[in-house]
Amino acid sequence: MDMIRGGVTAAKGFEAAGAETGVKYKDRKDMAVIYSQVPCRQAGVFTSNVVKAAPVLWDKNVIDYSPFVQAVVINSGIANACTGVLGYECCKKTVECAAKELDIPVDSVLVASTGVIGMQIPMEKITAGIEKLAGMKSSELEAGTMAAEAIMTTDTVSKEAAIRFEIDGKTVTVGGMCKGSGMIHPNMCTMLGFITTDIAISKELLQDALSTDVKDTFNMISVDGDTSTNDTLIVLANGMAGNEEIISKDDNYYKFLEALHIIDETLAKKMAGDGEGATALFETKVIHAGSKEDARVLSKSVICSSLTKAAIFGHDANWGRILCALGYSGVKFDPENIELFFEGKSGRMQIYKDGAAVDYSEEEATKILSEPEVRVLVDMKMGEYEACAWGCDLTYDYVKINADYRS
Amino acid sequence: MDMIRGGVTAAKGFEAAGAETGVKYKDRKDMAVIYSQVPCRQAGVFTSNVVKAAPVLWDKNVIDYSPFVQAVVINSGIANACTGVLGYECCKKTVECAAKELDIPVDSVLVASTGVIGMQIPMEKITAGIEKLAGMKSSELEAGTMAAEAIMTTDTVSKEAAIRFEIDGKTVTVGGMCKGSGMIHPNMCTMLGFITTDIAISKELLQDALSTDVKDTFNMISVDGDTSTNDTLIVLANGMAGNEEIISKDDNYYKFLEALHIIDETLAKKMAGDGEGATALFETKVIHAGSKEDARVLSKSVICSSLTKAAIFGHDANWGRILCALGYSGVKFDPENIELFFEGKSGRMQIYKDGAAVDYSEEEATKILSEPEVRVLVDMKMGEYEACAWGCDLTYDYVKINADYRS
Repeated sequence: MDMIRGGVTAAKGFEAAGAETGVKYKDRKDMAVIYSQVPCRQAGVFTSNVVKAAPVLWDKNVIDYSPFVQAVVINSGIANACTGVLGYECCKKTVECAAKELDIPVDSVLVASTGVIGMQIPMEKITAGIEKLAGMKSSELEAGTMAAEAIMTTDTVSKEAAIRFEIDGKTVTVGGMCKGSGMIHPNMCTMLGFITTDIAISKELLQDALSTDVKDTFNMISVDGDTSTNDTLIVLANGMAGNEEIISKDDNYYKFLEALHIIDETLAKKMAGDGEGATALFETKVIHAGSKEDARVLSKSVICSSLTKAAIFGHDANWGRILCALGYSGVKFDPENIELFFEGKSGRMQIYKDGAAVDYSEEEATKILSEPEVRVLVDMKMGEYEACAWGCDLTYDYVKINADYRS
Repeated sequence: MDMIRGGVTAAKGFEAAGAETGVKYKDRKDMAVIYSQVPCRQAGVFTSNVVKAAPVLWDKNVIDYSPFVQAVVINSGIANACTGVLGYECCKKTVECAAKELDIPVDSVLVASTGVIGMQIPMEKITAGIEKLAGMKSSELEAGTMAAEAIMTTDTVSKEAAIRFEIDGKTVTVGGMCKGSGMIHPNMCTMLGFITTDIAISKELLQDALSTDVKDTFNMISVDGDTSTNDTLIVLANGMAGNEEIISKDDNYYKFLEALHIIDETLAKKMAGDGEGATALFETKVIHAGSKEDARVLSKSVICSSLTKAAIFGHDANWGRILCALGYSGVKFDPENIELFFEGKSGRMQIYKDGAAVDYSEEEATKILSEPEVRVLVDMKMGEYEACAWGCDLTYDYVKINADYRS
């Protein structure tokens, strides 16, 4: 498997575009389209929030019941959530406009929004935007990058990843993009993520692969503990790689799952590391847990702890907060029996054992905690399960960004 | 019922003291003692964190098995958590020293600590501190205040409350103090809280009253979602009011429960409003929920949302974040059917109805959100249960305090 340059246009037959349309922002791209030259199998996972944005309600239907999908229209700046009947009407008009401009069926168009909750989308700007995007779309890698830039809100960098591998002599590509920086605590999947692939695979197995993999990737990141109203992760597979269609969980399925996992994990980590105001990616790996679920809950509890996140920002080896966060996670364990390490470029450093701190160097610990990727390793010594979760530090800038996000 | 001045020395027969002892801080009080002239019935609730500080382990035993309690020794600055065997030894020595100085049985002494996790307590300073406190203790209201000041860590104000009422012609007093500012998300009870009363009541009913009431008071506040290793709430009742001992849930019991509730709620709100870095108390009341538990979960989800807390700091009426936090709470509801209000000194202001924003004045909303107590009212229109939760805003200073707490 080889990581390659590119995003949603890396796989055969996919086109994209990103453009300034003035829906919300001035002087920056705020609408994107993804288009496949041929019909795609579709799969999706969505927010578990009871309050679901209009596009989420719309897409769930399309993912479940449409025979195929051929395009996605995305806008940033306005989430189209808590917008009542008008919000759902907006999705309908968006899709009708895109179907006309791209000459594809109305029920083959997905729509996604991200941004401020509660504000109505100016429909005429969306319509004009779709016309613009339809004229611009291309299969160049740069077009994918422009789309990735157009879906950003408080993100500081665009987020793409692509991978290439072979199945039965055919080259298969999986590429994706995502956005997300605040209100990130996905439960089912992340803010907005789009993955395209030219693999031929049945719709059932595509959904199965996606639903399986998000549990260890997008669902294991958190920026602020707030599960969004808009979380959406879509995979489109157009079959243009020319492999024999995958219809059972054979070796080829697991090869695809491995590639999908690498793309999902790469994108998820990019999102966590670019959390609002973040200066560091904060990873916690829990090993030797009693169950997979325990490992997930423990690692996520640590990366979600506001106090631990603030300590990471201060490069302060305040490991007691990590112990505390493990302790209130809901998982039962004996604090006397676990071990704690920091991991940096210079190697692994033990911090805690037998119920108390070991004799470690504060200076060395501060050095490790000053790296752009801070890693904590927790050995539960209870079983054989492990999990990894990713977050970021809690900074002044997080507060600044969110104290006045709407203006 | 009359609120009166005072704290732990408001009730008959209770003495206290607070002093500088150099256990952790310089030039400020960091040890306190509470003492009753006669033996007390005791009740307590403690952290649900798996990682429990040594004093919590010690006190659980004393609350359950000692025939009576007569003193509490408290230190601030070092939590005596994650300190292994040495930490428990420290509790033992503290209690032995206090018993000797105060001439009371060893098993009648409780001990409580708050501060940095993982650091060992310098025992000789504790011993010297106890001697000092034993010589200073007094039943003056000021002595209670000095104790309340001595248990502060990042608190900006000391927290006391007292109330007086009559039972069968006898005057009964309930007074208390607490501390807590960071790592506040009590689950069973809060950081450190101590309530003294001269009522005569059976041990079982005292514990019952406490366990019942914390669910709607201390367990309904959160500063940062981190459930501490040290959460402790103790009630001591010495019977000196001279009322006939309460041994059943009669009118007198409910009168006491009402007084206890007022003290608990007053102290809990003081703690939330003095959250680390906070500029405002943030209250969310949920009415017409389908069950009491739903009402609690919904209101707590809102006051725990980092994004909502940051918006409150910015006086930004970003109500979408409130809807979002209700939505991911785990409680099922129809977002189209609920209503949302802000409440300020100038009255109640509707924000959201029928699935979308109502036509409200942003200027008026900003004014309400600039008050020192920000109140959100959520009408679920599903049943007859209600609950209230208290938190605070998320500010630069929260990050500042916690990025470098240990130094």
